[in-house]
Amino acid sequence: LKLLEERILSDGLALPGSVLKVDMFLNHQIDFSLLKELGREFYNIFGSENVTKILTVEASGIALACAAAEFFSVPALFAKKGLSKNIGSDYYSAEVFSYTKGSQYTIYVSKKYLSERDRVLIIDDFLATGAALDGLCDICARAGASVAGIGAAIEKAFQGGGKRFREAGIKLASLAVIESMDNGKIVFN
Amino acid sequence: LKLLEERILSDGLALPGSVLKVDMFLNHQIDFSLLKELGREFYNIFGSENVTKILTVEASGIALACAAAEFFSVPALFAKKGLSKNIGSDYYSAEVFSYTKGSQYTIYVSKKYLSERDRVLIIDDFLATGAALDGLCDICARAGASVAGIGAAIEKAFQGGGKRFREAGIKLASLAVIESMDNGKIVFN
Repeated sequence: LKLLEERILSDGLALPGSVLKVDMFLNHQIDFSLLKELGREFYNIFGSENVTKILTVEASGIALACAAAEFFSVPALFAKKGLSKNIGSDYYSAEVFSYTKGSQYTIYVSKKYLSERDRVLIIDDFLATGAALDGLCDICARAGASVAGIGAAIEKAFQGGGKRFREAGIKLASLAVIESMDNGKIVFN
Repeated sequence: LKLLEERILSDGLALPGSVLKVDMFLNHQIDFSLLKELGREFYNIFGSENVTKILTVEASGIALACAAAEFFSVPALFAKKGLSKNIGSDYYSAEVFSYTKGSQYTIYVSKKYLSERDRVLIIDDFLATGAALDGLCDICARAGASVAGIGAAIEKAFQGGGKRFREAGIKLASLAVIESMDNGKIVFN
């Protein structure tokens, strides 16, 4: 999506270690008017897939999932990274290894909000190795829900997650695909 | 707001220990069309306050902050509960004691996204003791930003946070104020 690529080039920062800093509009400070355009594009791509629910993981996926949910007129649902008193004991869980933080964590979704009647569009801000999205796919499988597809705002193609999902036959839409970002220079696919 | 009170009565669950479970529409599964109406109401209340930024804390405040940000046409900004590689070293922080989880945590906002030129509307899904909102006020004070007001979807008046903010002269709008929820019966103000 041209709009997103332009915003990444104007505002984003390519830091050493393949870190793309876009926290001025995507995952700390949020330009929700931009995110709505991303949500609209996900609807253009997945609108005919009979999606019943948008699933993401806290925290940085939530805004984008809400932007998409509005176009699909379905609920957004975010997997939680910890158990609180409120989530109850009846949940699906999956393990996720975070390469950014170098540690493993568990994500949880209440069984009440995902079932075999659901057709799920999984959304996240970034697709790098795909570990968080794997966890969300696992949770859909445990619920018996079908995955309509995966939508990511930004894919770092050189980290392999996107290739893996495409080879597995999952419909994947990344709105900006970064081929390389060596020496601070961002190159899109 | 009638719409929210009705939704709490129809879908919400008052559990022992003053826990109000609204995770079917507010803070796990999200009905963003409802949240937009809450955002609109915050704009009705705070629209003349020259708000430049909506501030919340991850994770359950994000959706509501985005819904409000759209009406105000300003960025949403969420305080993070942990430091990742991406946040950098230049941040404001505040300590928050969570009564729900029984532990203390630190919240962080990058110094780049909050300054003395900002007039901030602080938003959260719940106002109970007000500990998280205190932390967000602290962060505004550290940035030299002025607080235009606080907007909460649901206030549990019997936990005292709302009274404290009002007595401190802060403009506070809670869209549903719960006076009591003994024996599973929810009574609004």
